[in-house]
Amino acid sequence: MSITYPRGFRAAAVKAGIKPSGKIDLALIVRERGAAHAASAAAFTTNQILGAPVIIGQEQRAATLKGGAALRAVLVNAGNSNAATGEQGLADARACMKAAAEAIGCAAGEVLVSSTGVIGRLLPTAKITGAVAGLAAALAQGADADAAAAAAIMTTDLVAKTARREVEINGCRVRIGAIAKGSGMIAPKLDCASGPPRPSATMLAFITTDAAIESRDLQRVLDEACAGSFNRVSVDNHPSCSDSAIVLASGEARGAGGAGGAGADGAAMAVLKPGSAGMAAFGAALAEVCTDLATQIVVDGEGATRIFKVRVTGAASDAEAERMAREVVNSPLVKCAIHGRDPNWGRIVTAAGNAGVKFDPSGASLTIGAVEVYRAGVPLPHALDDPRLADAMAGKRVECELVVGRGPGSAWMIGCDLSAQYVSINADYTT
Amino acid sequence: MSITYPRGFRAAAVKAGIKPSGKIDLALIVRERGAAHAASAAAFTTNQILGAPVIIGQEQRAATLKGGAALRAVLVNAGNSNAATGEQGLADARACMKAAAEAIGCAAGEVLVSSTGVIGRLLPTAKITGAVAGLAAALAQGADADAAAAAAIMTTDLVAKTARREVEINGCRVRIGAIAKGSGMIAPKLDCASGPPRPSATMLAFITTDAAIESRDLQRVLDEACAGSFNRVSVDNHPSCSDSAIVLASGEARGAGGAGGAGADGAAMAVLKPGSAGMAAFGAALAEVCTDLATQIVVDGEGATRIFKVRVTGAASDAEAERMAREVVNSPLVKCAIHGRDPNWGRIVTAAGNAGVKFDPSGASLTIGAVEVYRAGVPLPHALDDPRLADAMAGKRVECELVVGRGPGSAWMIGCDLSAQYVSINADYTT
Repeated sequence: MSITYPRGFRAAAVKAGIKPSGKIDLALIVRERGAAHAASAAAFTTNQILGAPVIIGQEQRAATLKGGAALRAVLVNAGNSNAATGEQGLADARACMKAAAEAIGCAAGEVLVSSTGVIGRLLPTAKITGAVAGLAAALAQGADADAAAAAAIMTTDLVAKTARREVEINGCRVRIGAIAKGSGMIAPKLDCASGPPRPSATMLAFITTDAAIESRDLQRVLDEACAGSFNRVSVDNHPSCSDSAIVLASGEARGAGGAGGAGADGAAMAVLKPGSAGMAAFGAALAEVCTDLATQIVVDGEGATRIFKVRVTGAASDAEAERMAREVVNSPLVKCAIHGRDPNWGRIVTAAGNAGVKFDPSGASLTIGAVEVYRAGVPLPHALDDPRLADAMAGKRVECELVVGRGPGSAWMIGCDLSAQYVSINADYTT
Repeated sequence: MSITYPRGFRAAAVKAGIKPSGKIDLALIVRERGAAHAASAAAFTTNQILGAPVIIGQEQRAATLKGGAALRAVLVNAGNSNAATGEQGLADARACMKAAAEAIGCAAGEVLVSSTGVIGRLLPTAKITGAVAGLAAALAQGADADAAAAAAIMTTDLVAKTARREVEINGCRVRIGAIAKGSGMIAPKLDCASGPPRPSATMLAFITTDAAIESRDLQRVLDEACAGSFNRVSVDNHPSCSDSAIVLASGEARGAGGAGGAGADGAAMAVLKPGSAGMAAFGAALAEVCTDLATQIVVDGEGATRIFKVRVTGAASDAEAERMAREVVNSPLVKCAIHGRDPNWGRIVTAAGNAGVKFDPSGASLTIGAVEVYRAGVPLPHALDDPRLADAMAGKRVECELVVGRGPGSAWMIGCDLSAQYVSINADYTT
């Protein structure tokens, strides 16, 4: 179980005929009626070209944060992103919202639509609105199709991505469940509604939780979680127009049973307070779920055979460290070296040197796996002959640490190798 | 003829045993003794990790601009970049300078060394210093090996790159000759000694001219030329630690014969004055040579089968337009689409949308070849069915124009497609 793991959520999925392959392509995730404490939060791409669902989703988020109703449902399709489709795209998205809202019995504004697939083609709206009643009927009959929902949102993904966590907070068992998709056009730079915009792809992540939390607090912990997870991975350095991470909360968590605390009697949990230990525990669990999903996305990156994590330390600031780490994971030359198991550290250090951040090579060093290959600006003799280096390069996960000075700034990024398969997928597949 | 096309220059090249392939790998380009008016200029990478030759070359350039002697010779090797090699690398570079200076009879500071090849390996200095006497002897015997010099500097290049122009200035025939190398690790962001740093790969370009011009003026026209040529191309968005463009001038241009003007009698031309029509004509010719070389580099980009030029117009500033154009030519998804002849304009507009530059999609349009595919934020019906679009995508040179608004800013960039061959070259070859 994933998206329906927390109390108070159901999901259904069908083949609506949007994917040319004819595979399952439309999912509906709904918070059940009468939730103890409804809340929602969302993070969206910072691309200037936006999918119609993202444009509308930004409005919905703003309304929720101003005290309006939380999102109650997500209707998501793969096969068409409804992006770069202008006014017609917005009208199509609203028609889908309306159909879903009528089927499940809520306001249209409480339904978030989300779309992924080819850009710049009008949405086959009738296929979606025509399928909605069946989805809602399945939900009413107790469908619990979280695995099908995870499959429905896949595009070039080879595997479905799911994650879940349970954490005990204030005597209550709080659950988080999630599904995500993403394989190409992945380099999320999700915005941050609770603070200044931050960099964050089409990656879509839908998360449910039965925690009791206010929407504004949920938004803050989601922003934090995105900054340290989705925004830290890159397959191909091309943030999508549709990247979205959505959380729905029900407040339906119940007592852990036997333990003390507010939920011990099986009553709904008390709403989490900002700054409390409970909020911190929930934030940590949400961050874990997002990091789990983000890592699954890059492992399943188009054509990827291994991932690599670059940690930059000693920079003047975290932001500068991130710019350097991002330049390394996005360098085609570094990605090819990782693919070829070539410990070509010159490409790594020169990639970092292109980030527009000043540093002194004489204070720089690089370690791949457990082998320091470059220290104080000069190659270390014999490092290339160390068998541990070849072992590190042959793994499914290559790790390196680049020290660029003595500053307090650090950051990590996770990328994947570049293979001929990536070219094949993207020279043929129209996204 | 190329590098020895202008009056007053000679070149020689040999196999020094630096390239593992055993191919020709060391060239010496020399301005002959007693030039009428010696000058030189240079532009170098803005990477924070620098080849030892670049570090020393920056010092040499500064000395020339302060009134010191102009560069007299360039000693360039392929097979080893002498980069990320610390103090030993600097000592090795200086040993090569000294050997060349002794052989041709000038000060060590008048010899610029330049190196390209694998990063982070100590230079096989003895091979170079041992070969220098033979190079100098060949020059003394009247060698005119400009084709061999162009071959000596190749690494993964499939073809040698040369260019030349002749322009009549003030009654004199002024010649410009050039050789260049570059195929991978190409996204030059050359600095600009005569102004603020600008973004500029290992691309190396060596240019000679018999124009009579002061070094400071030569530097200014070189900076202008680089900004509009080398700095406008990208193979793989990874500026090298060794990118360099060097110009040597002899002032040996002579009268056009028959025409009036200062050189009509066959005497050396008068030194070009800043702001004069002659200076403008020389600058234009130098820019043409640099653009010619830059285009040859991207056409020969590793694994490239076609190039594409993106022009962005209507931006608030040229700098913002350049950021958008750069994002488009560097997107792996766009590059794969170009490889697959896929008119996937959604990738182009979303790449531009990732440049961190705000624009309104409802004022944006995109034309590929002669076919407008996207106007005012919406797809144009039937554009994808236009046979001219398929023709445009099938050419060796794909051109597109993205209008992002009504501002005065515009810029162009030239990139190439991404092929499985690129991956093969770079997963196996250690640069």
